[in-house]
Amino acid sequence: MRGMSSSAIRELLKLTQQSDIISFAGGLPVPELFPVEEFRAATDRVLVKQGSEAMQYSTTEGYEPLREFIVHKMAQYNIQAAPENILITSGSQQVLDLIGKILINAGDLILTERPTYLGALQAWRAYQAQFVTVPIDGDGMQTEQLEEALCAGPKFMYILPNLQNPGGVTLSLERRRALIHITDRYGIPIIEDDPYGELRFEGEHLPPLVVLDAEKLDSHTPAGNAHGFYRGNVIYLSTFSKTLAPGLRLVWIVAPTEIIRECVKAKQGMDLHTSSFVQMVAYELVKDGFLKDHVRRIRQVYQERRDIMLDAMTRHFPPGNRWTWPHGGLFLWVTLPEIVDAGAVLDRAVANKITFVPGTVFYPDGSGHNTLRLNFSKARLEQIKIGIKRLGEVLAVELEYEEEVANRV
Amino acid sequence: MRGMSSSAIRELLKLTQQSDIISFAGGLPVPELFPVEEFRAATDRVLVKQGSEAMQYSTTEGYEPLREFIVHKMAQYNIQAAPENILITSGSQQVLDLIGKILINAGDLILTERPTYLGALQAWRAYQAQFVTVPIDGDGMQTEQLEEALCAGPKFMYILPNLQNPGGVTLSLERRRALIHITDRYGIPIIEDDPYGELRFEGEHLPPLVVLDAEKLDSHTPAGNAHGFYRGNVIYLSTFSKTLAPGLRLVWIVAPTEIIRECVKAKQGMDLHTSSFVQMVAYELVKDGFLKDHVRRIRQVYQERRDIMLDAMTRHFPPGNRWTWPHGGLFLWVTLPEIVDAGAVLDRAVANKITFVPGTVFYPDGSGHNTLRLNFSKARLEQIKIGIKRLGEVLAVELEYEEEVANRV
Repeated sequence: MRGMSSSAIRELLKLTQQSDIISFAGGLPVPELFPVEEFRAATDRVLVKQGSEAMQYSTTEGYEPLREFIVHKMAQYNIQAAPENILITSGSQQVLDLIGKILINAGDLILTERPTYLGALQAWRAYQAQFVTVPIDGDGMQTEQLEEALCAGPKFMYILPNLQNPGGVTLSLERRRALIHITDRYGIPIIEDDPYGELRFEGEHLPPLVVLDAEKLDSHTPAGNAHGFYRGNVIYLSTFSKTLAPGLRLVWIVAPTEIIRECVKAKQGMDLHTSSFVQMVAYELVKDGFLKDHVRRIRQVYQERRDIMLDAMTRHFPPGNRWTWPHGGLFLWVTLPEIVDAGAVLDRAVANKITFVPGTVFYPDGSGHNTLRLNFSKARLEQIKIGIKRLGEVLAVELEYEEEVANRV
Repeated sequence: MRGMSSSAIRELLKLTQQSDIISFAGGLPVPELFPVEEFRAATDRVLVKQGSEAMQYSTTEGYEPLREFIVHKMAQYNIQAAPENILITSGSQQVLDLIGKILINAGDLILTERPTYLGALQAWRAYQAQFVTVPIDGDGMQTEQLEEALCAGPKFMYILPNLQNPGGVTLSLERRRALIHITDRYGIPIIEDDPYGELRFEGEHLPPLVVLDAEKLDSHTPAGNAHGFYRGNVIYLSTFSKTLAPGLRLVWIVAPTEIIRECVKAKQGMDLHTSSFVQMVAYELVKDGFLKDHVRRIRQVYQERRDIMLDAMTRHFPPGNRWTWPHGGLFLWVTLPEIVDAGAVLDRAVANKITFVPGTVFYPDGSGHNTLRLNFSKARLEQIKIGIKRLGEVLAVELEYEEEVANRV
């Protein structure tokens, strides 16, 4: 399975639905944690009180009370926004497509982490974007290499600072400050994608780039932000997909009003608006504080699964393999010995009823042959133990095989 | 309001929500006809039986049982398709955007009716399309002028053969056959957009272009369609927006499998998939035949409103104005005396608490200054009577004013 196409990835994800497969592929939230009962009650309240409104066309910007809820939610992270700074979209894929539509011309360079989120690569390749990348380590993007990438002239930067997909790593505070300091001189927009920040179960939440950027602006012009409006160079994205349920397809953009206006215009031509019904139900569900307790429960479950996985990896993975230590989110990232190809490991793993995603798909240039992504949130504890033990054996066999081949040459 | 921008149209539509305004603008289905109670019951059944599935990610192609339902629904119109020929999208605007993405390169020509659906123009202008047009009359596109337009080399044709928006007219059977006969020689794809066909309350349903095209193919190669699969040059679009509820944003494409595959790939990069929850609820609602009775009720209400509107127009519109006689759907189309500008009429109308959409926005080249679209489905009977009487007075005043100006020159 070297050099996987997107259809190969889809086949792989289909495979993971077989009941005898232990899947560390995919990034699905755990269905047993979906708040089905609460959702059902909220749906019923909406249809009793506002049935016609829920079934009618609505505005492109999104359901006003939900946008106001998001304003308050953002304020908890010190992100100062007004409803005019918020646009609700149909899933994160639509935001990425919107951004492609309004910012990318064929041949434009985009700066990303290496590895980075596959959905962004897919969305922007459709606009014939090219990529310039900066590698990550355990503290996120290696900002000391950022300036060189900026010199290549990218149109904008795309980064997942919290519990990155696929790396599972978080950009350190020091690097956040460095990143803002460096990019400030180049003046390019930053897309800060933060679907996982709320799923941190270890360590302190770090200030978003958008907040650091605004602080820097304020220090230039101390009286500048008197109106408390959102400004600066950062477009911030987040979602209800990981905290509530992905099937709702509810994501939001926070951006300066002129960017939101461009996005609204583009979204009008793309799908007119996101389902009014779903937005109203989501609002009904979250408006009285439900999300806070619910997310706490998700974090507990995910933490337990991460712990078990890391423990099993330490026991069963052969020497020479390295991995990240995520403080939350859904993923961790494994670097195999240079000699081993993750695609070949996957072939053996599938034969042993285990799946994961080989790392190359997350590299814009198709490198990263000896890396792979493990999802720790989906499988149950017992499955994780069995699956990681089996994967350790597979890794050992593949390493031995490759060493033998190398010796023969 | 001459040469309305899309933001001007949005302002106009906002205006229509004021309670003292009689609105003939917009194309909203009538909220009092939304099946709120049935929808609520269906939602509840889905969340009780399949709650987790409804909240999880789903496939890009759409919810399988709903696609199978659509296969059966299409068969009622003799459209032979398998689930592989169906893709469910997030509203008709997304289909149009998808089509733009896979078919249009900057500068490509697209053949449309004149006037045509505004949403299509908006979606495809984003891809820098150009337009070549064929005028409509009471029997739809004037196919005797089609060949000349085809000679300009369009990439594809876009047509709404049934109860067209904005014209309210239906392409006659004779012209349908002529259209297929002529385009066959040019081999370009036809996008057959049919959101209103089910809302016909007068006359017989005519065979879709996709069916006539398949018949023609079969006559070339009699044994060709042995597998009963969908084939040919026509991409057919329809929707639950006008029959069930627009807020659900559920539309489908019927197309050859290779086109569906291209669309699926593009949709993956656009919004991954349409809300699983909404698709499952829609399926639960329609699977046992609910739609048939419900659509019958909608047709009755719309027919009554159309009759009242046509009657009032005959009584109150000054001589020199002409209009179409729609056999269903939502709209009728008025041609004013050449000397009168519909934008100027709108200014006077708004002052008299009446709105409609001036026709120029439906013309790719911005012509049609003396045309306007009236929606007959939304306002209640008494409002239609009052509103059309008032509009007739406005038309008379504006005509008198223009004649005075003309005489002075």
